[in-house]
Amino acid sequence: MAQLLKAKEAADQVYERILKRTEEWKAAGCLPCMGVILVEGDPASLLYVRAKQKIAGRLGIAFQLKTFRPDAQESEVMRLIAEWNADSAVHGIMLELPLPKHWSQARIESAIAPQKDVDGVTPANKLATMTGLEGLYPATPQACIRLLRHYGYRLEGANVALIGRGQTVGLPLFHMLQREQATVTVCHSRTPDLAFHLRHAEVAFAAAGQPGLVTREMVHPELVLIDAGINESADGSIAGDVSAGAAEAVKAVSPVPGGVGTLTTAILFENVLKALELQAQGKVAGR
Amino acid sequence: MAQLLKAKEAADQVYERILKRTEEWKAAGCLPCMGVILVEGDPASLLYVRAKQKIAGRLGIAFQLKTFRPDAQESEVMRLIAEWNADSAVHGIMLELPLPKHWSQARIESAIAPQKDVDGVTPANKLATMTGLEGLYPATPQACIRLLRHYGYRLEGANVALIGRGQTVGLPLFHMLQREQATVTVCHSRTPDLAFHLRHAEVAFAAAGQPGLVTREMVHPELVLIDAGINESADGSIAGDVSAGAAEAVKAVSPVPGGVGTLTTAILFENVLKALELQAQGKVAGR
Repeated sequence: MAQLLKAKEAADQVYERILKRTEEWKAAGCLPCMGVILVEGDPASLLYVRAKQKIAGRLGIAFQLKTFRPDAQESEVMRLIAEWNADSAVHGIMLELPLPKHWSQARIESAIAPQKDVDGVTPANKLATMTGLEGLYPATPQACIRLLRHYGYRLEGANVALIGRGQTVGLPLFHMLQREQATVTVCHSRTPDLAFHLRHAEVAFAAAGQPGLVTREMVHPELVLIDAGINESADGSIAGDVSAGAAEAVKAVSPVPGGVGTLTTAILFENVLKALELQAQGKVAGR
Repeated sequence: MAQLLKAKEAADQVYERILKRTEEWKAAGCLPCMGVILVEGDPASLLYVRAKQKIAGRLGIAFQLKTFRPDAQESEVMRLIAEWNADSAVHGIMLELPLPKHWSQARIESAIAPQKDVDGVTPANKLATMTGLEGLYPATPQACIRLLRHYGYRLEGANVALIGRGQTVGLPLFHMLQREQATVTVCHSRTPDLAFHLRHAEVAFAAAGQPGLVTREMVHPELVLIDAGINESADGSIAGDVSAGAAEAVKAVSPVPGGVGTLTTAILFENVLKALELQAQGKVAGR
């Protein structure tokens, strides 16, 4: 039976630190505040936002939610971002996806002030993530590495198979793994023999967004497998990229739900405090 | 005996296209012009600059060389860059390395206007190289891929070992190889078993800057090996990262000198014309 790399303990440790630091900021007269932008229409997004709102409440972090109707104009969101950028009482800005298809996601993301960009989506923070400069790094790839570390697994010198090279998880994770001194093979939809690379890896990260992609035949009993896939099925349940058969046949695997996603939420709030610190120090991300 | 992937023919084809386009720009009343900044003190850099100057002359591209004494102030170079940024008669700006140690290379590079940054060193062009957005990509990684293609070797679906992850060659090359649909393993100084990865690769790129790093024992007879190393020895001769023994034991290998470096110079001038086009279209790199 594979070891289950549950994230609750690691996430709780992050929340404890956040609670303590939030208290310190409040004692110094500053209420940490996160602003979230949601365009109505996607029931799952609304659930995610409500979950974050609840956690913010528990942490004592202020939570501003602005919702837009699906027929809103892109310019309205841009105006709100400009307002929040200039508002010294808002420290983090997050754009809940998806956006209406005819909007330019890249343009809207680029409008966020890098030092408030808690989701790491601006060009400045993307570059910082890639190069290791100070900035706000996206939470999911951070969660992947920290979950592994929490259970004492090493990345330095390890052969790592990374499945997926998307802008949100795979690519930033690749860069973070470089700084961990892993030897990384980046596999993707055009990789002819995924099983070959998994067979020769000590650690694998699945971030393809394809349920059941990693099958039992591909893995081996010494593999440590982090599942960063969050795939919604028609009935609303969540599945990772790792099949049940593969999860049984490895040394250790992170569950979905209860793994990477759980730690990701905690790190998102950690980023709010990191953003607040960057702003207090007058620093700009990616410089 | 390994096939020698000499770059002269590929470079000549690039030069032919440049000559033709330069004539067209001149006919339209615009003289393409490249500005090069050199800080005196490094004899090799001076040789490189003189070589570029000669090629520019042959191509009919204007070449402005500004040299600074080693005791010059960083601010003097910054002033020149600002001048050239604003000067519509200068289309490409290149900073010859090394700079004096107490200068901030990052600050100086960031000062170059992205649409004139023919060496691809500004943050905007680094991000463009990484993400595939329009921009000016560094010449050496481009040369690595085009040399391989010139000889009809495919990257799509291939297992590729990339040795080196530096900001100048390895890292941008990694991103370009993603767009070629290769499955890339990034090896580096902390990779415990480089030979293992070379043994399982169909194509390898050596960009570690370490003479003789790739030895005969690491390679196999079906390997296609591109040597992007340019290592100067004490006697002034140039050697790649591939040992003579390895070069004999593979299917194909690019020579040093006469390989990647030769094509790199040609692509640098191609970038001058690309820069000119970006400027004519009013485009900004990395947007």
